Amino acid sequence: MINEITIFCPATVANVACGFDVLGFCLDAIGDTMIIRKTKVKGLKIIHVEGFNLSCSLYENVAGVSALAIYEHAKPNCGFEIEIYKHIKPGSGIGSSAASAMGSVFGINVLLGHLYNKIELTNFAMKGEALASKSDHADNLAPIIYGGFTLVRNTSPLDILQIPIPKDLYVTIIHPQIEVKTSDARNILPDTISLKDAITQWGNLGSFIHALHTSDYKLMQRSLNDVIIEPHRKQYIPYFDKVKSAVLESGALGCAISGSGPSIFALSKGKTAAKKVEKTMQSVYYNTEVSYDTFVSTISSKGIHIINL
Amino acid sequence: MINEITIFCPATVANVACGFDVLGFCLDAIGDTMIIRKTKVKGLKIIHVEGFNLSCSLYENVAGVSALAIYEHAKPNCGFEIEIYKHIKPGSGIGSSAASAMGSVFGINVLLGHLYNKIELTNFAMKGEALASKSDHADNLAPIIYGGFTLVRNTSPLDILQIPIPKDLYVTIIHPQIEVKTSDARNILPDTISLKDAITQWGNLGSFIHALHTSDYKLMQRSLNDVIIEPHRKQYIPYFDKVKSAVLESGALGCAISGSGPSIFALSKGKTAAKKVEKTMQSVYYNTEVSYDTFVSTISSKGIHIINL
Repeated sequence: MINEITIFCPATVANVACGFDVLGFCLDAIGDTMIIRKTKVKGLKIIHVEGFNLSCSLYENVAGVSALAIYEHAKPNCGFEIEIYKHIKPGSGIGSSAASAMGSVFGINVLLGHLYNKIELTNFAMKGEALASKSDHADNLAPIIYGGFTLVRNTSPLDILQIPIPKDLYVTIIHPQIEVKTSDARNILPDTISLKDAITQWGNLGSFIHALHTSDYKLMQRSLNDVIIEPHRKQYIPYFDKVKSAVLESGALGCAISGSGPSIFALSKGKTAAKKVEKTMQSVYYNTEVSYDTFVSTISSKGIHIINL
Repeated sequence: MINEITIFCPATVANVACGFDVLGFCLDAIGDTMIIRKTKVKGLKIIHVEGFNLSCSLYENVAGVSALAIYEHAKPNCGFEIEIYKHIKPGSGIGSSAASAMGSVFGINVLLGHLYNKIELTNFAMKGEALASKSDHADNLAPIIYGGFTLVRNTSPLDILQIPIPKDLYVTIIHPQIEVKTSDARNILPDTISLKDAITQWGNLGSFIHALHTSDYKLMQRSLNDVIIEPHRKQYIPYFDKVKSAVLESGALGCAISGSGPSIFALSKGKTAAKKVEKTMQSVYYNTEVSYDTFVSTISSKGIHIINL
């Protein structure tokens, strides 16, 4: 009888240039660690949060809110303690809240003997995500629980598709250490867009999905464009245009805002190319006032998983 | 030395519910026949057009306009005569002008010894299409020359993708014998759409492309929706809502306007299902004032082709 598990809760990239609100993929180079422990006493407790001064209150922490959702649905004859070791900075744009929201739900489900399927777990986790983003979306949650690339066709009812991962695809991320409020990033988006731009965007998304199925890297390069969201959000990210043009010149397949920013991601064919892109990103920010972190990652086919038993 | 060829120029369905202006597929049950003949005398002539009182003037017939485009580019030391036997009614919404535009271009290219590739041929044919539709698009042309399902990611420069055809996919078409002016069908479209609807549409298009790759018929059914164009254009098509709901109830995977209408297409899994859908379509129109034609077709992987030498 397992009473405690430790979980790796990976970071994720949502939107992916042409797939605003529907597309996402899972990273493996960075993620939070969570320990979930079954207790005889009923109820939930977040007993420890390390990193970034987050709240231990169940109702103010996304991991708590999502944990409550699954716990109140399952009504088990036990309780759970949660320990959170955050490595993904909240507000960095690589799915920090999604990792916490899915972590507690995934862990509790394992300790309950796998009562729920992935769609149900995503629905519980969406309750936590809603606390952070004030909106119902699953484009960061889906790649955490399914791994790889996912397309969320619909959120109500949830309809999640797993798209193939071309084997040589690598991701480079730069996180400029500035704060972009998710609410600002949402509010700046227009309610309406031109039909012409929308056609460009869905042509690109359809093409990108085809490119993932066929491992057509040149087509990925042509499709990885965002004519809808990036023109609005890039103003919050200092040196975005410089980073993007330098990164594309140094051989990346595409470069765009990760989630609602401020992190910027680039996709490359092969690790060497991704490392070169990382150096390029660093060189743009090096002589500026902005601090930054960078890393290179593969696209994780595993998603969230238990790291010891 | 071949001096004369006869060509089958297939009908096509553009837009395909979720893929406005980018997606199309090729039919095999209906198409025009064209004869292209090399002449010693330089110049082009349309010497015969059978069906639908179309003009024999090079400048007033889409086949003439596109023929001029390839002819003036190639500047060959010979001329061509064109005979057109129209079976696809102009204005029916299943690519009548595209069939004519591509037919002459394809035929002349064969008699010139295959000087041009498919992208170049599509560019020439677009000149003809522009005469009929007053806009630059290739969503009917691409499936004629490539066969199957095509996605036109971009028209300038042309970027055309071939998407796999699930083997059990059948099409049913009903053509209500009414006139919808292409200009009306264009003018009724809004210049701007809501971001929310656009997200729904690109989620569906991405999912439909994934469904074609994975032969996932249930996903095709969930994805074949048009929240952008259909609400505006359906008013031109009498009994559209009735046909659609009856057809979906009788088991079709999806049902939407073909091109800019008035033809309505439905996709089904298997020929028996497609035949049942045809009967359903007929039953809706049977007791109305509207005359109609219906047919069932596979999706042609061949596209335009020579039928004798």
